[in-house]
Amino acid sequence: MNAEIIAIGSELLTPYRQDTNSLYLTDKLNQLGVEVHFKTIVGDRRTDLVSAAHTALSRADIVLFMGGLGPTEDDLTRECVAEVLGRKLVRDQQIVEWLRARFAERGWKMPENNERQGDVIAGAEVLTNKRGSAPGQFVHIKDEGGEAVIVLLPGPPGELMGMYEDQCVERLRKVLPARNIAVRELKIAMIGESAADKRAAAIYSQYKDVETTILAGTPGEVQFHLRAQADTPETAQNRVDELAAALEDEFDDAVFSTRGESMEKIVGYYLEMKAATLAVAESCTGGMLAERITSVPGSSRYFLGGAVVYDNTLKTGLADVPPLMIAEHGAVSGQVASALAEGIRARCKATLGVGITGIAGPGGATPEKPVGLVYTALADGTKTEVAERKFFGDRDRIRQWATQQALDMVRRKLM
Amino acid sequence: MNAEIIAIGSELLTPYRQDTNSLYLTDKLNQLGVEVHFKTIVGDRRTDLVSAAHTALSRADIVLFMGGLGPTEDDLTRECVAEVLGRKLVRDQQIVEWLRARFAERGWKMPENNERQGDVIAGAEVLTNKRGSAPGQFVHIKDEGGEAVIVLLPGPPGELMGMYEDQCVERLRKVLPARNIAVRELKIAMIGESAADKRAAAIYSQYKDVETTILAGTPGEVQFHLRAQADTPETAQNRVDELAAALEDEFDDAVFSTRGESMEKIVGYYLEMKAATLAVAESCTGGMLAERITSVPGSSRYFLGGAVVYDNTLKTGLADVPPLMIAEHGAVSGQVASALAEGIRARCKATLGVGITGIAGPGGATPEKPVGLVYTALADGTKTEVAERKFFGDRDRIRQWATQQALDMVRRKLM
Repeated sequence: MNAEIIAIGSELLTPYRQDTNSLYLTDKLNQLGVEVHFKTIVGDRRTDLVSAAHTALSRADIVLFMGGLGPTEDDLTRECVAEVLGRKLVRDQQIVEWLRARFAERGWKMPENNERQGDVIAGAEVLTNKRGSAPGQFVHIKDEGGEAVIVLLPGPPGELMGMYEDQCVERLRKVLPARNIAVRELKIAMIGESAADKRAAAIYSQYKDVETTILAGTPGEVQFHLRAQADTPETAQNRVDELAAALEDEFDDAVFSTRGESMEKIVGYYLEMKAATLAVAESCTGGMLAERITSVPGSSRYFLGGAVVYDNTLKTGLADVPPLMIAEHGAVSGQVASALAEGIRARCKATLGVGITGIAGPGGATPEKPVGLVYTALADGTKTEVAERKFFGDRDRIRQWATQQALDMVRRKLM
Repeated sequence: MNAEIIAIGSELLTPYRQDTNSLYLTDKLNQLGVEVHFKTIVGDRRTDLVSAAHTALSRADIVLFMGGLGPTEDDLTRECVAEVLGRKLVRDQQIVEWLRARFAERGWKMPENNERQGDVIAGAEVLTNKRGSAPGQFVHIKDEGGEAVIVLLPGPPGELMGMYEDQCVERLRKVLPARNIAVRELKIAMIGESAADKRAAAIYSQYKDVETTILAGTPGEVQFHLRAQADTPETAQNRVDELAAALEDEFDDAVFSTRGESMEKIVGYYLEMKAATLAVAESCTGGMLAERITSVPGSSRYFLGGAVVYDNTLKTGLADVPPLMIAEHGAVSGQVASALAEGIRARCKATLGVGITGIAGPGGATPEKPVGLVYTALADGTKTEVAERKFFGDRDRIRQWATQQALDMVRRKLM
């Protein structure tokens, strides 16, 4: 069975807002072996919504509607779907009482309009909403005309996800043919998407039964998403595990994550495991490296802090880079990157120190030092490694690549 | 005339990829007075694409197809649209020659398959592509059955945007009734979305002819998007300007941007204008404030740098906070925020110094100091202001609110 997802709301047809719920639902449906064939975004106009519902029911086996279940006149999903199905809407007094109690709890009187949220399509099962006031609905049709499932879900992401998990996934599972699906995810660092694909294709092309998707994550990260369907859960698992192992062999220590973790989380794992601490001195990345590291809850256990040494006087003042070194080699140089790493490590009394200096652009380039040139250094008190790299893209991408390079150096050091 | 946008590509029906081109196109179409009534996302299957094209042509006046114009067997947009229109595909030898020359320039021989990119729907105008190999197509139908416009655009965002600007917007303008549309955008700081809406509604509800959209930007930023249509360009402009002026009166100095600029850019303007410099010392925001400031090209003209003082020893070591003060008041306190601001200002010899300390969560809270409590301080050498705020949301949102608060304090100081 295949699916169509319909997102409802005029705000989703403006230049400012986008449906993102469908990514979540697609993932969940794929896990049940259901492919999404169409996604439609439609506003709150009655004729448009009827048209979208009509079209979807004519071409998909499972149609999921998201949004338009509120109490206002603009919330038309219930009525329009009932109309297209040729079924009546019946006001469910139990829901109305529940809604009234919900208002009373908050010390409010329920506006009469809200009773509309108790309207249920004849024959539908009600999906209770633990996080909001809009109940969902589940309709399973099976007759000589065929089989179809229609689901009405609320638009707010938290309500939608909660209701799908609590009320919807089991109902779908009962309707769908049993499938045995296994998934795996690998992430590799500092290899470009097309280079990664070239090396991987020779391997995954031998696993025709495993669906392989290659995606560029943040700059410096490529993801492999593997999915297999088979007769038994074990076979499906074995197939994705085999392919994952073959890819791990090929990419070796460039593989940094096998369970979806981010690079900053993995670096945190390693630092904590080795009881090591980290300090950083950043020039061109301007705090982005520290920000990525501290985005992980609990990072204070291994991250001490550091300096953003945008101005050259601060490279000396906060990280003890000798002014003569800057004068001789330039602020963007391997020497200064090393001195930043060593200086900040000593200042902060950290196990490891990182230094980054480069040209993020668009200005600041010279003939010898182009935009994208970045030096990254890692000091451990004994020796200091430096990487010279030339990154491509805009200012933001170059800075992201540079932070990924630095994190990857820390990871490799601790591995 | 209203529009439907169709994004084509099986990758857009996975949990990992999303159409974003349609946001760009919606903005451009709105500027011409065209509303988008539907968006459809469809994969590379022939029957699905035909179904989507058929449905769209039956319910929209303008249908824009994005993607599926490449040279491979999966690129079916040309064929499917021709089929639904009941028109022939004609191979345009001029395009084929142009494609061949494009390959030759790179020293390659064109694969035969690529000739398919020269297939043009009978009666269509060719839209040349300066950034890639896929030409677009523009079909204008006007007969007793009515009027319709069908546009085929390439999927890669750079190619799509370039082609729309160069080749498509003028053609659409010729077809569409002349409209006089004016737009304005205002951004306000540190007021919540619903509070802002409440105050604004009393004003914009008196301007029924100006479409007002209120959006939450990054945490701590609310945007008002105003759009008016009128008989003359002047009237349209006057109407949005009037409403903008009324909103500026209401929100006064909370308005930080009237031309779409980001907060970090505005702060940069002010710093440069006053020939002032800035240094920051961040604890809970962990570098995010410095990262935001340095995301602006040219920020080295006013931003010196600073310290990420995650560990308490660094609050002393890099920003001279007295250890006794930390012991007495706690690291999360107004006193420490002030000392951070004053310390980093002195260390870096900056005009202004900012200090941030708080509890970003999810851990680290105490009964007196809950998650979300953040102290932000600004020192100018004479006096130091401190703000105590309690922010809501997850770790990332709390950190974003805190950086916005700090930037807004700098802005207000320099205004």
